[in-house]
Amino acid sequence: MEVTEALKLVRPCIQDMHGYVPGKQLAAGDYKKLNTNENPYPPSPRVAEALQRVQGADLRLYSDPLATPLRATAARIHGCEVDQVIAGNGSDDILTMIFRTFLDPGDVVATAAPSYSLYSALSAMQAARFVEIPMEPGYTLPENLNACGAKVLLIVNPNSPTGVLYSQQALRSLLDKAQSMVVLDEAYAEFAGESAIDLLNEYPHLIVTRTFSKSYALAGLRLGLGFAHPEVIRQLMKVKDSYNLDRLAIVAGCAALEDQAWLEKTTAKIIRTRTRMLAEFETMGLHVPPSRSNFVFPRIPGGRAKEVFEALEKRRILVRYFGSLPMIADSLRVTVGTDEEADAFLEALKEILQGM
Amino acid sequence: MEVTEALKLVRPCIQDMHGYVPGKQLAAGDYKKLNTNENPYPPSPRVAEALQRVQGADLRLYSDPLATPLRATAARIHGCEVDQVIAGNGSDDILTMIFRTFLDPGDVVATAAPSYSLYSALSAMQAARFVEIPMEPGYTLPENLNACGAKVLLIVNPNSPTGVLYSQQALRSLLDKAQSMVVLDEAYAEFAGESAIDLLNEYPHLIVTRTFSKSYALAGLRLGLGFAHPEVIRQLMKVKDSYNLDRLAIVAGCAALEDQAWLEKTTAKIIRTRTRMLAEFETMGLHVPPSRSNFVFPRIPGGRAKEVFEALEKRRILVRYFGSLPMIADSLRVTVGTDEEADAFLEALKEILQGM
Repeated sequence: MEVTEALKLVRPCIQDMHGYVPGKQLAAGDYKKLNTNENPYPPSPRVAEALQRVQGADLRLYSDPLATPLRATAARIHGCEVDQVIAGNGSDDILTMIFRTFLDPGDVVATAAPSYSLYSALSAMQAARFVEIPMEPGYTLPENLNACGAKVLLIVNPNSPTGVLYSQQALRSLLDKAQSMVVLDEAYAEFAGESAIDLLNEYPHLIVTRTFSKSYALAGLRLGLGFAHPEVIRQLMKVKDSYNLDRLAIVAGCAALEDQAWLEKTTAKIIRTRTRMLAEFETMGLHVPPSRSNFVFPRIPGGRAKEVFEALEKRRILVRYFGSLPMIADSLRVTVGTDEEADAFLEALKEILQGM
Repeated sequence: MEVTEALKLVRPCIQDMHGYVPGKQLAAGDYKKLNTNENPYPPSPRVAEALQRVQGADLRLYSDPLATPLRATAARIHGCEVDQVIAGNGSDDILTMIFRTFLDPGDVVATAAPSYSLYSALSAMQAARFVEIPMEPGYTLPENLNACGAKVLLIVNPNSPTGVLYSQQALRSLLDKAQSMVVLDEAYAEFAGESAIDLLNEYPHLIVTRTFSKSYALAGLRLGLGFAHPEVIRQLMKVKDSYNLDRLAIVAGCAALEDQAWLEKTTAKIIRTRTRMLAEFETMGLHVPPSRSNFVFPRIPGGRAKEVFEALEKRRILVRYFGSLPMIADSLRVTVGTDEEADAFLEALKEILQGM
């Protein structure tokens, strides 16, 4: 067989799709990396301690396919039951499970746009119809989310890339009317201090996802959690990879969850820096949504977001520019780093804007 | 919404399926664990050394989405190009990518049965039609594999659970005629000393998968590789989770690959024990296929496989019994452990059979 024939065997929906393009990851070098919302502070020292205790020989045996210790710890910390929790190889893995559980070809999946760009890739893989409903002016939830016939609604809260938090009241109103599964992607919830996990017992069609990549500073370890009704969790379990979490990730995840004091301390630092950045944008006369996340999303005047993005990169400061998405191509998403990183970014931004 | 309504949103193919049931994993205790083909020897000491060098702080940053160092090392060891390699969170992850890339609902996926029980679960998730073509007497490849209209053919080589190796000649003959993708699942190839990776340049419709769970003794770390034509790899990349391998797994995988001497030493020990077990079965008058893997598959006379399985479990020896699969329910799959484990198993088996 020729390779052209082999490629004809690829599903049309995969032939047509472009893969998800992750934010630029650099091998090394003197960059300020403010483009993928990683934590500027290291994870809890308990994580390294816990990893040290794993013996090399332990690795010869399969991990717990249900990641039970991690789920039990998460349930205790979040005040729910272990059968309301599923663990994933990153929250991307949880999102994959949700798509594979609920979406047949042609089914509608909707999101309040802008949101996480992975959703569209996951929709393509399921040959599902991806509908983006633009958020209202003032960054509130679109009124008509429930009217598009979706089987799954996806809402990032706090939103990415705007950083805005949707109110519990707005979410309740949505959930009360929804005829679909409602997924609240709470990747950034620890920076907002609010969560819908408390609503689980009221809404069996609610799924909440969490990640360890942001507030827990473990992006490099791939750990995520899903919270839902036990019967929904049971369905999601069917489509997960048998041993989706490795032994080291399970141990590290437990250690990170146990150190809530570290989480609170590092999160508080990031929030202080965020407050300072937001104030600085106002002083500079830049419009910026009120971020409740670990990033800010200033609008760059004069349609010059791309120009500023490139000028920053020349100064070895990486931020995220969504050039292919017209709705948000006027702004730049900037991770809240250390105070020093924030200062370097703000100074560079001022210089660049003044020089234009 | 009531939970019954939420569950109606689950895809029918998922509602109908049972999840894949992994071999029993024990929390602890004095079991001889010969049921999931783990390696009885620890991984290369270089793995632990490499893991020690990773700093906790490194974990705050995302891993390399393409796992390039691991793929480059694998390409060098296996004599191919880096763009012919994809890395997975276990080879299960690679299999998932293959199913998601090639199988639309209703498409046919076929396997030479018996084979890996995960295939049927993955087929259900794609709503694909799963066809099992029984192997020929004498454990050779079925003649009619190419006649069932499959888009993907899956062959475990050496086969599980029989342990038998299909000849390169038989594989070439299949590949020459195939109008489908042909996946050779080489989870156990290092115990056979033969591989189809050498055939990649001749057959662009060939995909070879490998795992670190067996010969590299890293089941607990979740590492797998896929080898194929660069254009096929490019399609598979589209459907993989963005950061499917974590930083620790990438580092550990490289270290394990670099220590081929350790691999050869531990593999040779397992092969010696396997040879001894096979000879012992013959002495006992038990039929057993000529295993080229790290497990053996003795037939239990008198339809008593289940009884023997349970009697072994009472003696705290775990093996695998495929009671739900009539074709192979007369045999037990027993991992080749250490010499001590093999002796304990053989002694227990003799006593149980004599007592019946």
